[in-house]
Amino acid sequence: MKTILFALPGNEKLTDTLTKHLNAERGESTIRNFPDGESYIQIRSEVKNKRVVLVCTLNDPDTKFLPLYFFSKTAKDLGADCTCLIAPYLAYMRQDKRFQPGEAITSKYFGELISHFSETLVTVDPHLHRRSNLTEIYSIPSQVVHAADHISNWINQHVHNPVLVGPDSESEQWVSEVAKNAMAPFIVLQKIRHGDKDVEVSIPQVQEFKNCTPVLVDDIISTARTMIETVRHLNSLKMKAPICIGVHAVFSGNAYKELSNSGVKDIITCNTIPHESNQIDISNLLLEGYNNHWNEK
Amino acid sequence: MKTILFALPGNEKLTDTLTKHLNAERGESTIRNFPDGESYIQIRSEVKNKRVVLVCTLNDPDTKFLPLYFFSKTAKDLGADCTCLIAPYLAYMRQDKRFQPGEAITSKYFGELISHFSETLVTVDPHLHRRSNLTEIYSIPSQVVHAADHISNWINQHVHNPVLVGPDSESEQWVSEVAKNAMAPFIVLQKIRHGDKDVEVSIPQVQEFKNCTPVLVDDIISTARTMIETVRHLNSLKMKAPICIGVHAVFSGNAYKELSNSGVKDIITCNTIPHESNQIDISNLLLEGYNNHWNEK
Repeated sequence: MKTILFALPGNEKLTDTLTKHLNAERGESTIRNFPDGESYIQIRSEVKNKRVVLVCTLNDPDTKFLPLYFFSKTAKDLGADCTCLIAPYLAYMRQDKRFQPGEAITSKYFGELISHFSETLVTVDPHLHRRSNLTEIYSIPSQVVHAADHISNWINQHVHNPVLVGPDSESEQWVSEVAKNAMAPFIVLQKIRHGDKDVEVSIPQVQEFKNCTPVLVDDIISTARTMIETVRHLNSLKMKAPICIGVHAVFSGNAYKELSNSGVKDIITCNTIPHESNQIDISNLLLEGYNNHWNEK
Repeated sequence: MKTILFALPGNEKLTDTLTKHLNAERGESTIRNFPDGESYIQIRSEVKNKRVVLVCTLNDPDTKFLPLYFFSKTAKDLGADCTCLIAPYLAYMRQDKRFQPGEAITSKYFGELISHFSETLVTVDPHLHRRSNLTEIYSIPSQVVHAADHISNWINQHVHNPVLVGPDSESEQWVSEVAKNAMAPFIVLQKIRHGDKDVEVSIPQVQEFKNCTPVLVDDIISTARTMIETVRHLNSLKMKAPICIGVHAVFSGNAYKELSNSGVKDIITCNTIPHESNQIDISNLLLEGYNNHWNEK
């Protein structure tokens, strides 16, 4: 089966890398908006009887969903054998139950939509804090790969005498794994969330690590409120300027600028969402996940 | 069966009007974005065993689709008997075939998505220039209502000695109907489209109507290129300043400002898309369509 990869807008660089390593074909397409905001899609490469791989990271999902869906439907209409989605960042992972009466369980509904038109899904560290497995949400086979080892390696290579700092108890298991592989100590913060943007943080045992470089690690940096709060706290305790590492560079609004100005030494992310802070390349993880899917079949 | 109406954001005024005339319940809900751009939906009114009507005009459809879909899924999860969509403006009506190889037939794909979660669809003058009927695109029953008579009435009441001007041959049938009911003469322009924004217009028999007020009528005003071109042409021929009437006030980018400054007397639209130019109320047409659906069942 021939494989052809297409980049949804913004995913060109990663798609080029994946195409090269898969020794596959790089598809040509036009994806643009009409002046009224509707999407126009044209697939310019032959897809008939091919395995079509769509690379589309899903931050800002509401604007990206229809073009992705239209692209997949078009490929099928043109005779593609199947369409596979590589979404390095997967959206709608938070609202996986009804916390308050009447709420939409958007994780489930979004999963149903994606499962409707994709043969498989490959993604990096989805925000699975209540669910243990994507199969509870996605009816298609999915491959979840983890950036922890890549982050450990980056810390090993770039940070002298680090102490890892996890933002909350939810992240403990994950941060402890990064710490273990980086052969570094770790502390986990107590976080009290008052709202989407309002977070209070307390830091235990901080005095033991005065000579270490704090490395804050989280899966998603969105508003960066938790990180900024933590950085300020560390600064007020006369700790060294910390390095902030996130898997997914969501950075809503001015978050990146605000975090940059909060007293950090550096901000580092993986290339799951294109951003100037991307310094950890996870493309080989995506390849591993993609190949696993076809080997398991 | 009890009926409850909900407004998707921006549709509150029209929803209030429809609720009042249907003597139904007005539902309460929260629809907002998280800082990362994901949608949050909460239905705060009881919907169990009720007929749920969602009012959501579909200009700028890519950002509106997921909230609408999530809302409908949530209502069903909460026990709603069915969800009905009132979309005064219906998107994705242009690309209803593959004009060039590899193009997405977005009309069809969008129709399939909507048909997947809605019991019925009520809309005003969808842009059906190649299809004669929405049933070719939507598998759910649909009710199409027409603003032509309302526009004729507005012209009758507000314009002395009008001559109706249709933008192109596609619109001839429609403009001739408006003209007939307004008891006014009409002319139809020859339009040559060079691109999304680049349109050339020629105007026949214009000298006969020097003492008339030209009334330009079109279904959708989007970039307003055709109207602006026509207005300039009429101005250069020393015709009176024209009145521009559109059913759907899409107005992409600066289109409204540019049309306002092009030498028009007035710009008038129907309230299918909330806009300051809305002067023709079509809410009774939507009620008629909605009631027809249930009477036909």
